[in-house]
Amino acid sequence: MPQQPLKRVLVTGGAGYIGSHIVLILLLTRQYKVLSIDNSHNSFPEALKRATEIATEALPADATEQDRDSAVVEAFSGDLRSRENVEKVFAGSPVWGVIHVAALKAVGESSEIPLDYYAVNVGATIQLLQIMAEHGCYNMVYSSSATVYGTPPVVPIPETTPLKAESVYGRTKVMCETILSDVCTSYPDKWRAISLRYFNPAGAHTSGRMGEDPRGKPGNLLPLLSQIAIGKFKDDPLKVFGNDYPTPDGTCVRDYIHILDLARGHLLALEALSDERAPGSKISPDIFPKQGGKFKAYNLGKGRGQSVLSMIEAMRKASGFNYQYEIIGRRVGDVPDLTADPALARKELGFDAPLELDTMCEDLWRWQSMNPDGYGQ
Amino acid sequence: MPQQPLKRVLVTGGAGYIGSHIVLILLLTRQYKVLSIDNSHNSFPEALKRATEIATEALPADATEQDRDSAVVEAFSGDLRSRENVEKVFAGSPVWGVIHVAALKAVGESSEIPLDYYAVNVGATIQLLQIMAEHGCYNMVYSSSATVYGTPPVVPIPETTPLKAESVYGRTKVMCETILSDVCTSYPDKWRAISLRYFNPAGAHTSGRMGEDPRGKPGNLLPLLSQIAIGKFKDDPLKVFGNDYPTPDGTCVRDYIHILDLARGHLLALEALSDERAPGSKISPDIFPKQGGKFKAYNLGKGRGQSVLSMIEAMRKASGFNYQYEIIGRRVGDVPDLTADPALARKELGFDAPLELDTMCEDLWRWQSMNPDGYGQ
Ligand SMILES: NC(=O)c1ccc[n+]([C@@H]2O[C@H](COP(=O)([O-])OP(=O)(O)OC[C@H]3O[C@@H](n4cnc5c(N)ncnc54)[C@H](O)[C@@H]3O)[C@@H](O)[C@H]2O)c1
Ligand SMILES: NC(=O)c1ccc[n+]([C@@H]2O[C@H](COP(=O)([O-])OP(=O)(O)OC[C@H]3O[C@@H](n4cnc5c(N)ncnc54)[C@H](O)[C@@H]3O)[C@@H](O)[C@H]2O)c1
Repeated sequence: MPQQPLKRVLVTGGAGYIGSHIVLILLLTRQYKVLSIDNSHNSFPEALKRATEIATEALPADATEQDRDSAVVEAFSGDLRSRENVEKVFAGSPVWGVIHVAALKAVGESSEIPLDYYAVNVGATIQLLQIMAEHGCYNMVYSSSATVYGTPPVVPIPETTPLKAESVYGRTKVMCETILSDVCTSYPDKWRAISLRYFNPAGAHTSGRMGEDPRGKPGNLLPLLSQIAIGKFKDDPLKVFGNDYPTPDGTCVRDYIHILDLARGHLLALEALSDERAPGSKISPDIFPKQGGKFKAYNLGKGRGQSVLSMIEAMRKASGFNYQYEIIGRRVGDVPDLTADPALARKELGFDAPLELDTMCEDLWRWQSMNPDGYGQ
Repeated sequence: MPQQPLKRVLVTGGAGYIGSHIVLILLLTRQYKVLSIDNSHNSFPEALKRATEIATEALPADATEQDRDSAVVEAFSGDLRSRENVEKVFAGSPVWGVIHVAALKAVGESSEIPLDYYAVNVGATIQLLQIMAEHGCYNMVYSSSATVYGTPPVVPIPETTPLKAESVYGRTKVMCETILSDVCTSYPDKWRAISLRYFNPAGAHTSGRMGEDPRGKPGNLLPLLSQIAIGKFKDDPLKVFGNDYPTPDGTCVRDYIHILDLARGHLLALEALSDERAPGSKISPDIFPKQGGKFKAYNLGKGRGQSVLSMIEAMRKASGFNYQYEIIGRRVGDVPDLTADPALARKELGFDAPLELDTMCEDLWRWQSMNPDGYGQ
């Protein structure tokens, strides 16, 4: 039986934490030719080399030429703000769809350099959509975030919650969803877009060869905990911001989802955008509204909340490190509980996040101890 | 007494209908060196030539060198989407402030080519703000619109009404206000911005030498009526969309404001952005909130609603033309009544819109009959 030709899919920000795991999961399917564009603002090209290595090692002995090709990511080094850089990626064979992951993502920083956030997250997205349209590429999976909900009135949070971001970063995500929705509404026969609202992606690939390696001190809890466990930040005690929240132990609650589960959600989204369904696919035939644009947003979370203290305990178990922490006052902008209602993605995409907290912490710790300096700058 | 050096102010979209009248009003003050950038997308460079002519003729006999300079607009032909084009404008002596008027502005068209609207209205605005910051220019007056209110819950509409635009065009305006507000909040010691929400600007300069000359068939009622009166669109009868609205005569009500009154509002906004006040100024010393960013939005309207039928009657009186019209069904997206509550601009900026409907229609008619082909392409 002849093989289906590979669908070309571009992952923007493909060298980043989430992007590189999406790339790996795509490579492993052997159904896509994966392209990436990244400017190394918060990542290292090494991540993509590792993804290609892992996928190549996983090839069966009788792998075809095409299989071998599918295991190799075509990595462009470029800035999404540059039309020229992006056009280079589209200059080759037609790209079928884009998983648009690249963004600046630090809530605090976003209020310090708002114009950079608007330029990268919104301006570059508008330009990317224009270039896609110019090249007849009309499918997008967009990396959104639970921050679009601001302080949610109902927890677990359903997708129908009004969007009310409380930071510049969050507002860039709401704007991009709005733009995507408008574009899809204007061209229901062309554009399709799925926005995935990530809760707290964490963990690493099981091999220990890929994981999260942010530049500078991690802003997120789990990479911070794993870096502390290998001996970093000794003079900078771990801080817990507030233990008087209306949560079981008083610390903030977040919904951690294993990075591999999250990455697999993108495979489902790509399938949902296409008219073809894999055999045994659990994706609903009509996820898009009959009237109006083919745009839909889904939460990607596990649907289970974990407090800061329970995460510290889980990382202690995984790493054996005895964390000392200091409880200080609440941090401005922190919301007590951000737990997803994951029902819609389960029902319509067949999405599931089976990997448990312990696995997440063990995988993270394997990555961190095998790569104490991350990708070894 | 030596003259104050001229403040350099850039008007984007300066050749357009509103922009050219703002330019003229600025030139007439002899207090600014006015720059313009426009790509002639919906305008003609002739408008700016006329503004310079009118201002030059108005110079007193003893005008200084600087006075003469202040009557001449420095017009750049360029596209705001091009960083290079915009940088050229900022390459000379420092620009003190920007009146950002350029935009695509047709509600209907905005749902046909949403990406162009987002690119020009939002993308180019983000880039403009970046270039301003790079050149130490932190003052902006922004051209917003009553459409940001969508279908307002209360009429006359106060500025405190939640923003809920119902078109792509309207959403581009809300996004720009949001971005401006964020930028001002992040840099309260640098950035200041005033957003002016225009209701229905209409009429022309009293000289009859400047007015509205949109490319193609006018989308707005008044220029359409004046072009019909000079004999255009004979085979295309005037349509009134709906006469069953909950308004006095059943047709939609809008708040028409004379273009010269509107343009003068921008002088007040510029003054309000600066720390200096003209002698006798009615501008409040502290229009910006004590806490947070120096961003403020004001309605610019007359505060009086006029129905479609009353506008037809007013234009009949001014032009003598006996309009035939056809009443057809409501047009999707039309809101029954958009009348400004003008109290805040009056109180804080000392803004007033004294010119009456009759004057507006007479001025428009003078322009149209003196220039049947507009700026004579
Ligand atoms: N990590 C989280 O907790 C989280 C949660 C919700 C949503 N998200 C979203 O997921 C996406 C990926 O997040 P991540 O955690 O992998 O972050 P990351 O910083 O690891 O990845 C983003 C990647 O984009 C690249 N990039 C940034 N600006 C670029 C530009 N102008 N041109 C080209 N590449 C550029 C960076 O170099 C980086 O590799 C982002 O859109 C983020 O907002 C992340
Ligand atoms: N006319 C109205 O009824 C009305 C009402 C509310 C708000 N506004 C706003 O007022 C502003 C001016 O409106 P107007 O009626 O004068 O429209 P206009 O079309 O006459 O003026 C806009 C000007 O911007 C220029 N322009 C457009 N895209 C450009 C680009 N990429 N680079 C450089 N120049 C560009 C056009 O050539 C034109 O001269 C717009 O922001 C509009 O949204 C207008």
